[in-house]
Amino acid sequence: MAAARSHEHEGAAVTCVDFWCNEFGMRARIALREKGVPFAFVEEDLRVRERSDLVRRMNPAHRSIPILIHGGRPVCGSLNIVEYVDEVWSDQTRRRLLPADPLERARARFWADFVDREVYGAQTRFLTSRSEAAKAAATAELLGHLRRLEAVLGDRAFFGGEELGFLDVALVPFSAMFHGYERHGGVDVAAECPALARWVGRCAERESVRGVLPSGHDMYEIHREFYDLE
Amino acid sequence: MAAARSHEHEGAAVTCVDFWCNEFGMRARIALREKGVPFAFVEEDLRVRERSDLVRRMNPAHRSIPILIHGGRPVCGSLNIVEYVDEVWSDQTRRRLLPADPLERARARFWADFVDREVYGAQTRFLTSRSEAAKAAATAELLGHLRRLEAVLGDRAFFGGEELGFLDVALVPFSAMFHGYERHGGVDVAAECPALARWVGRCAERESVRGVLPSGHDMYEIHREFYDLE
Repeated sequence: MAAARSHEHEGAAVTCVDFWCNEFGMRARIALREKGVPFAFVEEDLRVRERSDLVRRMNPAHRSIPILIHGGRPVCGSLNIVEYVDEVWSDQTRRRLLPADPLERARARFWADFVDREVYGAQTRFLTSRSEAAKAAATAELLGHLRRLEAVLGDRAFFGGEELGFLDVALVPFSAMFHGYERHGGVDVAAECPALARWVGRCAERESVRGVLPSGHDMYEIHREFYDLE
Repeated sequence: MAAARSHEHEGAAVTCVDFWCNEFGMRARIALREKGVPFAFVEEDLRVRERSDLVRRMNPAHRSIPILIHGGRPVCGSLNIVEYVDEVWSDQTRRRLLPADPLERARARFWADFVDREVYGAQTRFLTSRSEAAKAAATAELLGHLRRLEAVLGDRAFFGGEELGFLDVALVPFSAMFHGYERHGGVDVAAECPALARWVGRCAERESVRGVLPSGHDMYEIHREFYDLE
């Protein structure tokens, strides 16, 4: 695959192609910041229907973002990018995001996949359901998933234990929509999942998370625009 | 999570809960055989609508198979299981299924995810489309995905290089349906993707693959039953 040419990011060793409110792309940017890796941010506006030449060239199979470009070569898929960042930029001063124990690694990967398959889908149905019955069903489903994740968290500070780890990075971008859950459907995550809400607060103390997550207001407004909500 | 009790496999250090024709579960069983790990095989008949107590207890979030039970603790999700097996049972005599290079690892994970997202979905649409137009569209889509994977293979013996690796394990179970593609839709994979067909032949020489993949005939017949095909 050829290196990207004639783009603003040319010369940057690491580039992240993403849109500011993309829950999946935030994972890549949080991981890079956790590791202290400088990177150029190339914005791909998802409100424009056609994908850019850069995205079409770097991710021809899916034409999706985020894309991490490292030394001209693309890595695609948000969890895949987080694993790549974790493998490439780990040394004595930069701890691993994934646990060392294989069983714990498998658990972290399993629940990150659960976020992709279940939480994202339920959120989309919650936002796009037009009938009251469908919206109520999607709300119950979404809350069920969050409660399940709260049980996985248990009484630990982070899903990764004492420090922010792989599953924290995978899930925390979705917390930027918790304000939107309340605005759109009256879902009070702090009341329904108090431990999860406290976890969000702890995550927000990390510079990596604070520097990437948009405000709840901005996140809700862009979703209103995307889904043509009232 | 409690260990499984009062089951046939009690006492086995490693158990794989699966159904014989499950493309995803075959991955887990091929990986275990590649590593020479003895395991008990507990069959979960997918033709029965209700999932067993064992599956409901070991994978409450999805109630899906395959499930690997190691020392009483479950690992779920087929690619997750292959990574777990690769991490736990690797030593001087057992090579890694995933490449050592982070970029190559990311590529292997990316294309394995492509198989899950794209190949499986296209295969299902190919088998279940009732109108000629929908079937033709699904056939073109499925062939497009196989051609893309053939290009990824290039002129190597295996996706993993000289030896069977992670992406080979992820994809090869689907080759058991190539006979079914021809029977159901006249799709001749050997003619359309000759390099991929030769790769299937090389995979079939491995005991791990030969011992797990059903015959094309059996695979087609069970899919006819599942999807109520003519």
